[in-house]
Amino acid sequence: MNGNKGDMAAQGSAVPDPTLRRLPVYHHYLKNLSAADGDSISCTQIAEYLGLVPIQVRKDLAYTGIVGRPKTGYIVGELKAAIEKFLGWENQSDALLFGAGHLGMALLSYDGFRSYGLNILAAVDDDQSKQQTTVNGKKIIPLHKAEGLIKRLHIKIGIIAVPAAQAQDVADLMSQSGIRAIWNFAPVKVRAPQGIIVQHENLASSLAVLSKKLALAS
Amino acid sequence: MNGNKGDMAAQGSAVPDPTLRRLPVYHHYLKNLSAADGDSISCTQIAEYLGLVPIQVRKDLAYTGIVGRPKTGYIVGELKAAIEKFLGWENQSDALLFGAGHLGMALLSYDGFRSYGLNILAAVDDDQSKQQTTVNGKKIIPLHKAEGLIKRLHIKIGIIAVPAAQAQDVADLMSQSGIRAIWNFAPVKVRAPQGIIVQHENLASSLAVLSKKLALAS
Repeated sequence: MNGNKGDMAAQGSAVPDPTLRRLPVYHHYLKNLSAADGDSISCTQIAEYLGLVPIQVRKDLAYTGIVGRPKTGYIVGELKAAIEKFLGWENQSDALLFGAGHLGMALLSYDGFRSYGLNILAAVDDDQSKQQTTVNGKKIIPLHKAEGLIKRLHIKIGIIAVPAAQAQDVADLMSQSGIRAIWNFAPVKVRAPQGIIVQHENLASSLAVLSKKLALAS
Repeated sequence: MNGNKGDMAAQGSAVPDPTLRRLPVYHHYLKNLSAADGDSISCTQIAEYLGLVPIQVRKDLAYTGIVGRPKTGYIVGELKAAIEKFLGWENQSDALLFGAGHLGMALLSYDGFRSYGLNILAAVDDDQSKQQTTVNGKKIIPLHKAEGLIKRLHIKIGIIAVPAAQAQDVADLMSQSGIRAIWNFAPVKVRAPQGIIVQHENLASSLAVLSKKLALAS
Protein backbone atom coordinates (compact mmCIF):
# COMPACT_ATOMS: atom_id res chain seq x y z
CA MET A 1 0.00 0.00 0.00
CA ASN A 2 1.57 3.31 -0.96
CA GLY A 3 1.39 6.37 1.24
CA ASN A 4 -1.28 8.01 -0.82
CA LYS A 5 -3.66 5.09 -0.64
CA GLY A 6 -2.98 4.74 3.08
CA ASP A 7 -3.98 8.34 3.64
CA MET A 8 -7.19 7.87 1.75
CA ALA A 9 -8.04 4.78 3.74
CA ALA A 10 -7.32 6.44 7.04
CA GLN A 11 -9.45 9.39 6.04
CA GLY A 12 -12.17 7.43 4.30
CA SER A 13 -12.79 4.79 6.93
CA ALA A 14 -14.11 7.49 9.24
CA VAL A 15 -16.61 8.88 6.73
CA PRO A 16 -20.17 8.33 7.94
CA ASP A 17 -22.56 6.68 5.46
CA PRO A 18 -24.93 9.68 5.45
CA THR A 19 -22.02 11.90 4.34
CA LEU A 20 -21.16 9.43 1.56
CA ARG A 21 -24.81 9.54 0.50
CA ARG A 22 -24.87 13.34 0.39
CA LEU A 23 -21.66 13.80 -1.61
CA PRO A 24 -23.24 12.70 -4.93
CA VAL A 25 -26.15 15.03 -4.20
CA TYR A 26 -23.79 18.00 -3.76
CA HIS A 27 -22.06 17.00 -6.97
CA HIS A 28 -25.34 16.77 -8.82
CA TYR A 29 -26.31 20.21 -7.57
CA LEU A 30 -22.98 21.73 -8.67
CA LYS A 31 -23.21 20.09 -12.09
CA ASN A 32 -26.63 21.60 -12.71
CA LEU A 33 -25.70 25.06 -11.47
CA SER A 34 -25.60 27.73 -14.13
CA ALA A 35 -22.29 28.84 -12.57
CA ALA A 36 -18.97 28.53 -14.41
CA ASP A 37 -16.24 26.30 -13.02
CA GLY A 38 -14.25 29.38 -12.01
CA ASP A 39 -17.10 30.89 -9.98
CA SER A 40 -17.28 30.47 -6.26
CA ILE A 41 -20.07 29.14 -4.12
CA SER A 42 -20.66 29.24 -0.37
CA CYS A 43 -21.71 26.53 2.06
CA THR A 44 -24.78 28.58 2.83
CA GLN A 45 -25.91 28.58 -0.81
CA ILE A 46 -25.51 24.81 -1.11
CA ALA A 47 -27.12 24.25 2.28
CA GLU A 48 -30.11 26.40 1.44
CA TYR A 49 -30.84 24.55 -1.76
CA LEU A 50 -30.59 21.13 -0.14
CA GLY A 51 -32.37 21.96 3.09
CA LEU A 52 -29.38 21.39 5.34
CA VAL A 53 -27.59 23.55 7.89
CA PRO A 54 -24.39 25.17 6.50
CA ILE A 55 -22.15 23.56 9.12
CA GLN A 56 -23.29 20.12 7.94
CA VAL A 57 -22.33 20.96 4.36
CA ARG A 58 -18.93 22.28 5.48
CA LYS A 59 -18.28 19.11 7.52
CA ASP A 60 -19.31 16.81 4.66
CA LEU A 61 -17.16 18.61 2.11
CA ALA A 62 -14.16 18.65 4.44
CA TYR A 63 -13.95 14.84 4.13
CA THR A 64 -12.93 15.28 0.49
CA GLY A 65 -9.94 17.31 1.67
CA ILE A 66 -11.21 20.59 0.28
CA VAL A 67 -11.33 23.68 2.50
CA GLY A 68 -13.59 26.63 1.82
CA ARG A 69 -12.08 30.12 1.83
CA PRO A 70 -13.55 32.80 4.11
CA LYS A 71 -16.05 34.96 2.22
CA THR A 72 -15.53 33.42 -1.25
CA GLY A 73 -16.32 29.82 -0.23
CA TYR A 74 -15.40 27.12 -2.75
CA ILE A 75 -14.41 27.32 -6.42
CA VAL A 76 -17.14 25.32 -8.22
CA GLY A 77 -14.77 23.40 -10.52
CA GLU A 78 -12.37 22.50 -7.69
CA LEU A 79 -15.21 21.32 -5.50
CA LYS A 80 -16.69 19.11 -8.22
CA ALA A 81 -13.25 17.60 -8.92
CA ALA A 82 -12.59 16.98 -5.22
CA ILE A 83 -15.87 15.06 -4.83
CA GLU A 84 -15.24 13.01 -7.98
CA LYS A 85 -11.74 12.14 -6.84
CA PHE A 86 -12.83 11.30 -3.31
CA LEU A 87 -15.60 8.99 -4.51
CA GLY A 88 -13.28 7.36 -7.03
CA TRP A 89 -15.38 8.25 -10.05
CA GLU A 90 -12.33 8.58 -12.33
CA ASN A 91 -11.62 4.89 -11.81
CA GLN A 92 -14.29 2.75 -13.42
CA SER A 93 -15.22 -0.39 -11.50
CA ASP A 94 -16.59 -3.30 -13.50
CA ALA A 95 -19.76 -4.99 -12.32
CA LEU A 96 -21.78 -8.03 -13.31
CA LEU A 97 -25.56 -7.91 -12.98
CA PHE A 98 -27.60 -11.02 -12.11
CA GLY A 99 -31.18 -11.08 -13.32
CA ALA A 100 -32.52 -9.49 -16.50
CA GLY A 101 -36.16 -9.07 -15.49
CA HIS A 102 -37.77 -5.63 -15.42
CA LEU A 103 -35.53 -4.34 -12.64
CA GLY A 104 -32.36 -5.82 -14.11
CA MET A 105 -33.20 -4.31 -17.50
CA ALA A 106 -33.77 -0.93 -15.85
CA LEU A 107 -30.34 -1.08 -14.22
CA LEU A 108 -28.71 -2.29 -17.42
CA SER A 109 -30.21 0.50 -19.51
CA TYR A 110 -29.38 3.25 -17.05
CA ASP A 111 -26.45 5.13 -18.53
CA GLY A 112 -25.96 7.32 -15.48
CA PHE A 113 -23.92 4.73 -13.57
CA ARG A 114 -20.91 5.30 -15.81
CA SER A 115 -20.44 8.83 -14.55
CA TYR A 116 -20.42 7.41 -11.02
CA GLY A 117 -17.59 5.02 -11.80
CA LEU A 118 -19.71 1.90 -12.31
CA ASN A 119 -19.47 -0.06 -15.52
CA ILE A 120 -21.96 -2.93 -15.84
CA LEU A 121 -20.24 -5.33 -18.23
CA ALA A 122 -23.07 -7.79 -18.85
CA ALA A 123 -26.13 -9.38 -17.31
CA VAL A 124 -26.65 -13.00 -16.30
CA ASP A 125 -30.01 -14.64 -17.00
CA ASP A 126 -30.96 -18.20 -17.92
CA ASP A 127 -33.88 -17.08 -20.11
CA GLN A 128 -32.64 -18.19 -23.54
CA SER A 129 -34.73 -15.70 -25.48
CA LYS A 130 -32.95 -12.88 -23.66
CA GLN A 131 -29.52 -14.31 -24.43
CA GLN A 132 -30.01 -13.48 -28.11
CA THR A 133 -30.33 -9.77 -27.35
CA THR A 134 -28.00 -7.05 -26.18
CA VAL A 135 -29.30 -4.24 -23.97
CA ASN A 136 -27.53 -0.92 -24.12
CA GLY A 137 -24.69 -2.70 -25.91
CA LYS A 138 -24.39 -5.29 -23.14
CA LYS A 139 -24.75 -9.06 -23.53
CA ILE A 140 -26.97 -11.34 -21.51
CA ILE A 141 -25.09 -14.51 -20.65
CA PRO A 142 -26.23 -17.83 -19.13
CA LEU A 143 -25.62 -18.57 -15.45
CA HIS A 144 -23.02 -21.27 -16.06
CA LYS A 145 -20.71 -18.73 -17.71
CA ALA A 146 -20.86 -16.23 -14.83
CA GLU A 147 -18.17 -17.66 -12.56
CA GLY A 148 -15.66 -17.91 -15.40
CA LEU A 149 -16.29 -14.34 -16.49
CA ILE A 150 -15.91 -12.96 -12.96
CA LYS A 151 -12.60 -14.75 -12.50
CA ARG A 152 -11.23 -13.97 -15.94
CA LEU A 153 -12.00 -10.25 -15.78
CA HIS A 154 -11.45 -9.90 -12.01
CA ILE A 155 -14.90 -8.35 -11.59
CA LYS A 156 -15.26 -6.98 -8.06
CA ILE A 157 -18.89 -5.77 -7.92
CA GLY A 158 -21.97 -7.98 -8.25
CA ILE A 159 -25.51 -6.66 -8.54
CA ILE A 160 -28.45 -8.85 -7.53
CA ALA A 161 -31.74 -8.24 -9.36
CA VAL A 162 -33.20 -11.76 -9.21
CA PRO A 163 -36.35 -12.78 -7.30
CA ALA A 164 -36.03 -13.08 -3.52
CA ALA A 165 -35.99 -16.89 -3.57
CA GLN A 166 -32.82 -17.00 -5.71
CA ALA A 167 -30.95 -14.12 -4.10
CA GLN A 168 -28.94 -16.11 -1.55
CA ASP A 169 -27.80 -18.64 -4.18
CA VAL A 170 -26.60 -15.81 -6.37
CA ALA A 171 -24.81 -14.17 -3.43
CA ASP A 172 -23.07 -17.48 -2.66
CA LEU A 173 -21.95 -17.85 -6.25
CA MET A 174 -20.64 -14.27 -6.20
CA SER A 175 -18.66 -14.79 -2.99
CA GLN A 176 -17.14 -18.00 -4.32
CA SER A 177 -16.16 -16.40 -7.62
CA GLY A 178 -14.25 -13.46 -6.21
CA ILE A 179 -16.85 -10.68 -6.02
CA ARG A 180 -15.93 -8.28 -3.18
CA ALA A 181 -18.98 -6.04 -3.04
CA ILE A 182 -22.62 -7.04 -3.47
CA TRP A 183 -25.34 -4.52 -4.29
CA ASN A 184 -28.59 -6.30 -3.53
CA PHE A 185 -31.91 -5.15 -5.01
CA ALA A 186 -33.81 -8.35 -4.12
CA PRO A 187 -36.36 -7.76 -1.35
CA VAL A 188 -34.53 -10.06 1.07
CA LYS A 189 -31.32 -9.85 3.11
CA VAL A 190 -28.44 -11.91 1.78
CA ARG A 191 -25.50 -13.18 3.81
CA ALA A 192 -21.90 -13.20 2.63
CA PRO A 193 -18.60 -14.23 4.24
CA GLN A 194 -16.78 -11.61 6.28
CA GLY A 195 -14.78 -9.15 4.22
CA ILE A 196 -17.40 -8.98 1.49
CA ILE A 197 -19.38 -5.74 1.46
CA VAL A 198 -23.13 -6.15 1.12
CA GLN A 199 -25.43 -3.23 0.52
CA HIS A 200 -29.18 -3.74 0.48
CA GLU A 201 -31.38 -1.51 -1.59
CA ASN A 202 -34.53 -1.81 0.48
CA LEU A 203 -37.54 -0.19 -1.17
CA ALA A 204 -39.80 -1.23 1.72
CA SER A 205 -37.68 0.90 4.04
CA SER A 206 -37.96 3.95 1.82
CA LEU A 207 -41.65 3.40 1.48
CA ALA A 208 -42.01 3.23 5.26
CA VAL A 209 -40.49 6.69 5.61
CA LEU A 210 -42.69 8.13 2.89
CA SER A 211 -45.99 6.71 4.04
CA LYS A 212 -45.40 7.46 7.70
CA LYS A 213 -44.74 11.10 6.84
CA LEU A 214 -47.87 11.15 4.70
CA ALA A 215 -49.94 9.68 7.54
CA LEU A 216 -48.64 12.31 9.94
CA ALA A 217 -49.28 15.16 7.54
CA SER A 218 -52.88 14.27 6.75
CA MET B 1 -58.56 14.71 14.85
CA ASN B 2 -59.42 12.08 17.45
CA GLY B 3 -57.27 11.38 20.46
CA ASN B 4 -55.81 8.23 19.05
CA LYS B 5 -54.58 9.84 15.87
CA GLY B 6 -53.19 12.75 17.90
CA ASP B 7 -51.15 10.37 20.02
CA MET B 8 -49.75 8.68 16.96
CA ALA B 9 -48.83 11.96 15.38
CA ALA B 10 -47.15 13.26 18.49
CA GLN B 11 -45.21 10.04 18.77
CA GLY B 12 -44.54 9.63 15.08
CA SER B 13 -43.29 13.10 14.28
CA ALA B 14 -40.29 12.45 16.50
CA VAL B 15 -39.33 9.17 14.83
CA PRO B 16 -35.94 9.49 13.12
CA ASP B 17 -35.78 8.40 9.47
CA PRO B 18 -33.17 5.69 10.18
CA THR B 19 -35.58 4.11 12.69
CA LEU B 20 -38.39 4.21 10.13
CA ARG B 21 -36.05 2.52 7.67
CA ARG B 22 -35.14 -0.23 10.14
CA LEU B 23 -38.70 -1.09 11.20
CA PRO B 24 -39.53 -2.93 7.93
CA VAL B 25 -36.24 -4.80 8.27
CA TYR B 26 -37.17 -6.02 11.77
CA HIS B 27 -40.56 -7.02 10.42
CA HIS B 28 -39.01 -8.91 7.55
CA TYR B 29 -36.72 -10.73 9.97
CA LEU B 30 -39.63 -11.71 12.25
CA LYS B 31 -41.73 -12.89 9.30
CA ASN B 32 -38.97 -15.21 8.13
CA LEU B 33 -38.20 -16.59 11.59
CA SER B 34 -39.12 -20.21 12.08
CA ALA B 35 -40.61 -19.14 15.42
CA ALA B 36 -44.35 -19.33 16.10
CA ASP B 37 -46.31 -16.15 16.81
CA GLY B 38 -46.59 -17.14 20.45
CA ASP B 39 -42.83 -17.56 20.93
CA SER B 40 -40.75 -14.82 22.43
CA ILE B 41 -37.66 -13.14 21.09
CA SER B 42 -35.11 -10.84 22.71
CA CYS B 43 -33.59 -7.58 21.54
CA THR B 44 -30.22 -9.27 21.63
CA GLN B 45 -31.31 -11.98 19.19
CA ILE B 46 -32.70 -9.44 16.72
CA ALA B 47 -29.68 -7.19 17.17
CA GLU B 48 -27.23 -10.00 16.55
CA TYR B 49 -28.85 -11.03 13.30
CA LEU B 50 -28.98 -7.49 11.96
CA GLY B 51 -25.57 -6.36 13.17
CA LEU B 52 -26.87 -3.71 15.55
CA VAL B 53 -26.39 -3.07 19.26
CA PRO B 54 -29.32 -4.33 21.39
CA ILE B 55 -30.07 -0.89 22.86
CA GLN B 56 -30.61 0.44 19.32
CA VAL B 57 -33.16 -2.30 18.63
CA ARG B 58 -34.94 -1.62 21.93
CA LYS B 59 -35.10 2.11 21.19
CA ASP B 60 -36.40 1.58 17.64
CA LEU B 61 -39.09 -0.86 18.74
CA ALA B 62 -40.21 1.41 21.58
CA TYR B 63 -41.46 3.92 18.98
CA THR B 64 -44.16 1.44 18.01
CA GLY B 65 -45.43 1.55 21.59
CA ILE B 66 -44.39 -2.01 22.41
CA VAL B 67 -42.34 -2.72 25.52
CA GLY B 68 -40.19 -5.80 25.92
CA ARG B 69 -40.55 -7.88 29.08
CA PRO B 70 -37.48 -8.60 31.21
CA LYS B 71 -36.00 -12.01 30.37
CA THR B 72 -38.68 -13.10 27.85
CA GLY B 73 -38.36 -10.08 25.54
CA TYR B 74 -41.13 -9.65 22.97
CA ILE B 75 -43.90 -11.99 21.80
CA VAL B 76 -43.18 -12.48 18.07
CA GLY B 77 -46.80 -12.07 16.92
CA GLU B 78 -47.39 -8.96 19.05
CA LEU B 79 -44.19 -7.38 17.82
CA LYS B 80 -45.04 -7.99 14.16
CA ALA B 81 -48.53 -6.56 14.67
CA ALA B 82 -47.17 -3.49 16.48
CA ILE B 83 -44.80 -2.70 13.60
CA GLU B 84 -47.53 -3.21 10.99
CA LYS B 85 -49.92 -0.97 12.87
CA PHE B 86 -47.31 1.72 13.49
CA LEU B 87 -46.31 1.83 9.83
CA GLY B 88 -49.94 1.86 8.73
CA TRP B 89 -49.69 -1.31 6.66
CA GLU B 90 -53.30 -2.30 7.42
CA ASN B 91 -54.49 0.80 5.58
CA GLN B 92 -53.75 0.55 1.88
CA SER B 93 -52.72 3.80 0.22
CA ASP B 94 -53.42 4.16 -3.48
CA ALA B 95 -50.64 5.35 -5.74
CA LEU B 96 -50.31 6.33 -9.39
CA LEU B 97 -47.07 5.55 -11.21
CA PHE B 98 -45.72 7.82 -13.98
CA GLY B 99 -43.50 6.18 -16.56
CA ALA B 100 -43.78 2.60 -17.82
CA GLY B 101 -40.21 2.09 -19.01
CA HIS B 102 -38.05 -0.66 -17.53
CA LEU B 103 -38.01 0.84 -14.05
CA GLY B 104 -41.72 1.67 -14.07
CA MET B 105 -42.52 -1.86 -15.21
CA ALA B 106 -40.34 -3.26 -12.41
CA LEU B 107 -42.24 -1.22 -9.82
CA LEU B 108 -45.59 -2.12 -11.37
CA SER B 109 -44.84 -5.84 -11.35
CA TYR B 110 -43.50 -5.92 -7.82
CA ASP B 111 -46.18 -7.52 -5.70
CA GLY B 112 -44.38 -6.89 -2.43
CA PHE B 113 -45.61 -3.29 -2.12
CA ARG B 114 -49.12 -4.47 -1.23
CA SER B 115 -47.95 -5.96 2.04
CA TYR B 116 -46.38 -2.61 2.86
CA GLY B 117 -49.66 -0.77 2.41
CA LEU B 118 -49.00 0.56 -1.09
CA ASN B 119 -51.42 -0.17 -3.89
CA ILE B 120 -50.29 1.01 -7.33
CA LEU B 121 -53.56 1.50 -9.21
CA ALA B 122 -52.24 2.13 -12.70
CA ALA B 123 -49.33 3.52 -14.67
CA VAL B 124 -49.25 6.61 -16.88
CA ASP B 125 -47.35 6.49 -20.16
CA ASP B 126 -47.95 8.11 -23.53
CA ASP B 127 -46.53 5.17 -25.47
CA GLN B 128 -49.66 3.94 -27.26
CA SER B 129 -48.42 0.37 -27.70
CA LYS B 130 -48.17 0.07 -23.92
CA GLN B 131 -51.70 1.37 -23.41
CA GLN B 132 -53.11 -1.80 -24.96
CA THR B 133 -51.53 -3.96 -22.27
CA THR B 134 -52.09 -4.52 -18.58
CA VAL B 135 -49.16 -5.30 -16.30
CA ASN B 136 -49.84 -7.31 -13.18
CA GLY B 137 -53.54 -6.57 -13.73
CA LYS B 138 -52.91 -2.83 -13.92
CA LYS B 139 -53.76 -0.55 -16.81
CA ILE B 140 -51.43 1.86 -18.54
CA ILE B 141 -53.25 5.13 -19.22
CA PRO B 142 -52.33 8.19 -21.31
CA LEU B 143 -50.98 11.32 -19.62
CA HIS B 144 -54.06 13.46 -20.32
CA LYS B 145 -56.17 11.11 -18.18
CA ALA B 146 -53.87 11.26 -15.12
CA GLU B 147 -55.16 14.44 -13.49
CA GLY B 148 -58.78 13.33 -13.71
CA LEU B 149 -57.98 9.94 -12.20
CA ILE B 150 -56.03 11.43 -9.31
CA LYS B 151 -58.88 13.80 -8.48
CA ARG B 152 -61.66 11.28 -8.94
CA LEU B 153 -60.04 8.60 -6.78
CA HIS B 154 -58.35 11.00 -4.34
CA ILE B 155 -54.97 9.38 -4.97
CA LYS B 156 -52.42 10.69 -2.48
CA ILE B 157 -49.14 9.07 -3.58
CA GLY B 158 -47.39 9.64 -6.92
CA ILE B 159 -44.39 7.67 -8.10
CA ILE B 160 -42.01 9.16 -10.67
CA ALA B 161 -40.23 6.71 -12.97
CA VAL B 162 -39.83 8.91 -16.05
CA PRO B 163 -36.51 10.14 -17.50
CA ALA B 164 -34.78 12.97 -15.62
CA ALA B 165 -35.78 15.61 -18.18
CA GLN B 166 -39.49 15.01 -17.61
CA ALA B 167 -39.42 14.53 -13.84
CA GLN B 168 -40.13 18.12 -12.81
CA ASP B 169 -43.10 18.41 -15.20
CA VAL B 170 -44.57 15.25 -13.73
CA ALA B 171 -43.99 16.52 -10.19
CA ASP B 172 -45.78 19.78 -11.08
CA LEU B 173 -48.73 17.89 -12.51
CA MET B 174 -48.86 15.75 -9.36
CA SER B 175 -48.84 18.74 -7.02
CA GLN B 176 -51.57 20.47 -9.00
CA SER B 177 -53.77 17.39 -9.06
CA GLY B 178 -53.81 16.72 -5.33
CA ILE B 179 -50.94 14.26 -4.79
CA ARG B 180 -49.56 14.70 -1.26
CA ALA B 181 -46.46 12.49 -1.35
CA ILE B 182 -44.03 12.03 -4.24
CA TRP B 183 -41.68 9.06 -4.45
CA ASN B 184 -39.10 10.04 -7.03
CA PHE B 185 -36.96 7.43 -8.82
CA ALA B 186 -35.72 9.80 -11.55
CA PRO B 187 -32.03 10.64 -11.15
CA VAL B 188 -32.74 14.31 -10.48
CA LYS B 189 -34.15 16.31 -7.56
CA VAL B 190 -37.70 17.55 -8.04
CA ARG B 191 -39.26 20.51 -6.26
CA ALA B 192 -42.79 20.62 -4.90
CA PRO B 193 -44.82 23.21 -2.98
CA GLN B 194 -44.52 23.18 0.80
CA GLY B 195 -46.63 20.57 2.50
CA ILE B 196 -46.00 17.99 -0.19
CA ILE B 197 -43.63 15.22 0.87
CA VAL B 198 -40.90 14.38 -1.63
CA GLN B 199 -38.67 11.35 -1.22
CA HIS B 200 -35.80 10.79 -3.61
CA GLU B 201 -34.60 7.31 -4.36
CA ASN B 202 -31.03 8.14 -5.22
CA LEU B 203 -29.11 5.18 -6.62
CA ALA B 204 -25.98 7.29 -7.07
CA SER B 205 -25.89 7.86 -3.32
CA SER B 206 -26.11 4.16 -2.56
CA LEU B 207 -23.48 3.42 -5.12
CA ALA B 208 -21.18 5.99 -3.53
CA VAL B 209 -21.37 4.16 -0.20
CA LEU B 210 -20.72 0.79 -1.81
CA SER B 211 -17.80 1.77 -4.00
CA LYS B 212 -16.10 3.85 -1.32
CA LYS B 213 -16.20 0.86 1.04
CA LEU B 214 -14.85 -1.37 -1.70
CA ALA B 215 -12.00 1.07 -2.42
CA LEU B 216 -11.10 1.14 1.26
CA ALA B 217 -11.20 -2.63 1.59
CA SER B 218 -8.95 -3.40 -1.35
